Amino acid sequence: MTDLQFNYSKALGFITEEEVLAFKDECKNHLKSLKEKTGKGSDFLGWIDLPENSKSLIEPILADANSLACKSDVVVVIGIGGSYLGAKSVIDALNHHFDSFIEKDTPNIVYAGQNISEDYMSDLLEVLDKKEYAIVVISKSGTTTEPAIAFRILKNHIEAKYGKEKAVERIIAITDKEKGALKELSDKEGYRTYAVPNDVGGRYSVLSPVGLLPIAIAGYDIQKLIQGAANMQKFIFSDNTSFEKNQALIYAACRNALYRKGFINEVMVNYEPRLLYVSEWWKQLYGESEGKENKGIFPASVNFTTDLHSMGQYIQEGLRNLFETVISVKCGNKNIMIPEDISNMDKLNYISGKRISEVNHMAEIGTTLAHIDGGVPNLQIVIPEISEHILGQLIYFFEIACAVSGYILDVNPFDQPGVEAYKRNMFALLGKPGLEEETKSINLRLNNK
Amino acid sequence: MTDLQFNYSKALGFITEEEVLAFKDECKNHLKSLKEKTGKGSDFLGWIDLPENSKSLIEPILADANSLACKSDVVVVIGIGGSYLGAKSVIDALNHHFDSFIEKDTPNIVYAGQNISEDYMSDLLEVLDKKEYAIVVISKSGTTTEPAIAFRILKNHIEAKYGKEKAVERIIAITDKEKGALKELSDKEGYRTYAVPNDVGGRYSVLSPVGLLPIAIAGYDIQKLIQGAANMQKFIFSDNTSFEKNQALIYAACRNALYRKGFINEVMVNYEPRLLYVSEWWKQLYGESEGKENKGIFPASVNFTTDLHSMGQYIQEGLRNLFETVISVKCGNKNIMIPEDISNMDKLNYISGKRISEVNHMAEIGTTLAHIDGGVPNLQIVIPEISEHILGQLIYFFEIACAVSGYILDVNPFDQPGVEAYKRNMFALLGKPGLEEETKSINLRLNNK
Repeated sequence: MTDLQFNYSKALGFITEEEVLAFKDECKNHLKSLKEKTGKGSDFLGWIDLPENSKSLIEPILADANSLACKSDVVVVIGIGGSYLGAKSVIDALNHHFDSFIEKDTPNIVYAGQNISEDYMSDLLEVLDKKEYAIVVISKSGTTTEPAIAFRILKNHIEAKYGKEKAVERIIAITDKEKGALKELSDKEGYRTYAVPNDVGGRYSVLSPVGLLPIAIAGYDIQKLIQGAANMQKFIFSDNTSFEKNQALIYAACRNALYRKGFINEVMVNYEPRLLYVSEWWKQLYGESEGKENKGIFPASVNFTTDLHSMGQYIQEGLRNLFETVISVKCGNKNIMIPEDISNMDKLNYISGKRISEVNHMAEIGTTLAHIDGGVPNLQIVIPEISEHILGQLIYFFEIACAVSGYILDVNPFDQPGVEAYKRNMFALLGKPGLEEETKSINLRLNNK
Repeated sequence: MTDLQFNYSKALGFITEEEVLAFKDECKNHLKSLKEKTGKGSDFLGWIDLPENSKSLIEPILADANSLACKSDVVVVIGIGGSYLGAKSVIDALNHHFDSFIEKDTPNIVYAGQNISEDYMSDLLEVLDKKEYAIVVISKSGTTTEPAIAFRILKNHIEAKYGKEKAVERIIAITDKEKGALKELSDKEGYRTYAVPNDVGGRYSVLSPVGLLPIAIAGYDIQKLIQGAANMQKFIFSDNTSFEKNQALIYAACRNALYRKGFINEVMVNYEPRLLYVSEWWKQLYGESEGKENKGIFPASVNFTTDLHSMGQYIQEGLRNLFETVISVKCGNKNIMIPEDISNMDKLNYISGKRISEVNHMAEIGTTLAHIDGGVPNLQIVIPEISEHILGQLIYFFEIACAVSGYILDVNPFDQPGVEAYKRNMFALLGKPGLEEETKSINLRLNNK
């Protein structure tokens, strides 16, 4: 058994149980082909065994995390896409909401190389001028433009600040095991390195060193995270787990059943703001895996009740082509009650003595019913709490469901051919050597407009 | 003339110029009905004249802002939806990216009452225990659940911290001019108050005290913000401004032309991460104004190039029902060049000596072309820089375009009937007095599932 539960009873006015269960054989086959590596993109299935394969890395990662953390106020994680979203989703979910306002023993994690904003980099350098810091640079090739620019600048900065020799002790690279620009540079400079496994794509890499090292630096228990994922893996692949109880398969079946009925936008909902980046990570996982060949569900996200006061109107009464998937957290970690107030001018005394989380929970139930009534199917992922162990389960659940869902859609859920298009244009516009023809042709195109 | 320019040349493969210009008479009529208050929702058009009507408030707002700021490390803005999104969008756009890491003369702005998260409130209280702080509480009625809970708790906290008398000097309320729970409480306690104008809805309120006071506390120039909006107002409503040059009308026309051709998801794009909350504010403005009667464009947003590595694949090759609107910033405020590196292992020397912002700009052009080629129409809002004056123009541009666009869609862009549905359920579930029948019926419904 796992702690995470999936529930589609609130979608049953829109799809039938039969329609969901009709995916049984297909789902079972796809799961088998994941296990046996016989489906599309089977060169990139290394993530399936990360819960097992990452175990031996825990000890060295913890040692390195500790070594960086103890000499740093701030650790800069350089990476883009899957090279930062997994770590950020877990760290933000576990962090204090006002992490940078409080005193604590662990460093603040900040991110770089996830954009090309000059103002962002300038502000970051201003912070780093005054703080003790270290760098984790994550790039399989070492030549991805955004992180490469950031690392070139920050490498200069950290060497100027600490001297070249001391800087080496403050830099860890996560990159290809054998080849590529960052691997070569690391060998030359003497950086500690971890490998991005060859058979793991960026968006499936959170349980590899890509996610584990930053999460460990932030002070969270990567052993529990991995154990949570391992539990989910065992359950999903067990012969004793029926299709009906296999949450990941049922989620994949539900979303495809909905998609075929015209529900083409999926809105990931949370009621805890620190899950914001779980949704961002999920958007990459699903959008990049499924959005190809002119098909796929468009992934969007909201934070409730916050966004009930912005996107709520649209969800309640706009175009009827969307469904919601709610991450429902049973229990908060804190305990605050709404105080009694004798004057009761705000008319809240009817809920005084209740915990805030109880009100939040009633808002969730009330919203679900309202949206169903408005024509929005509702899927529900219930987790008992936000912890490393549960986040591990959640991550693995989403990954398997995504792979199976992509197979149902008949796409390769492990490639991302469309991501190259903007890069080719950008390189041509920047005059990259070897692209002289492309440069000429794109400039011609721009001048003709 | 205004600084903000709108450009739809990159949408012309998907809609024709004739199709856009065909909206001319309709747009002109809708603009006239906004001016003469003859259209749907004409009781809520006070926002049109805020650039003029807010001028007299600048002086008292600055005085109050200064009074709160000089005794606070942190100012808590309590509000939800339009009561915080406008302020946050402007403040974040102008703030240092690592605002809470640096030393500065102005207080940090934090938000409360925009969710019902117990963990969030607990963490906030932990911060406020140790910081000097003040509160701006924003609620027209004073009984909206989220901000009412937050204010009840924080009122107790601030009174316990400073004593009841001193606490009064640290609280400013922005609420109804005459009636309602927060107005009555403010009169009783002696809080300074500002009025939410009766004829201005939440999502159109940023240029009223609702937005202006927090923005002023954060240290930004509200006079320039208002002046920017006033410039845009003058230009939009001038008889000398042709339809073709009237950016707000053309934007409204373009998006409706696209919508009628099946482009039903609009993705707001920025290349500067500090514009994130401009997109969030925009999502409320457009989603809440248009998402009704089972129609309206679904508003989503991305940050590029960040999200080119997550949502980029979907946008390039997923379902072909979306279009992009890009906020294009001509010039950054800082100036950082990519350094030369003799070893050139990262192969970036072909762009060394270039400013980061130039690379960002080439990424933008390259992405636009790639997405057009992939089947995504592209609208472009060009602004010279991110400043108070330009943000004022941008806000007013979006507001007018939204109102006109809603009129073209034939909805009332100033109501939000669907927002009540979840609240009624929540109140019933919480056992609010007077809703005994609803409570019985909703419990019955839940028990039957």
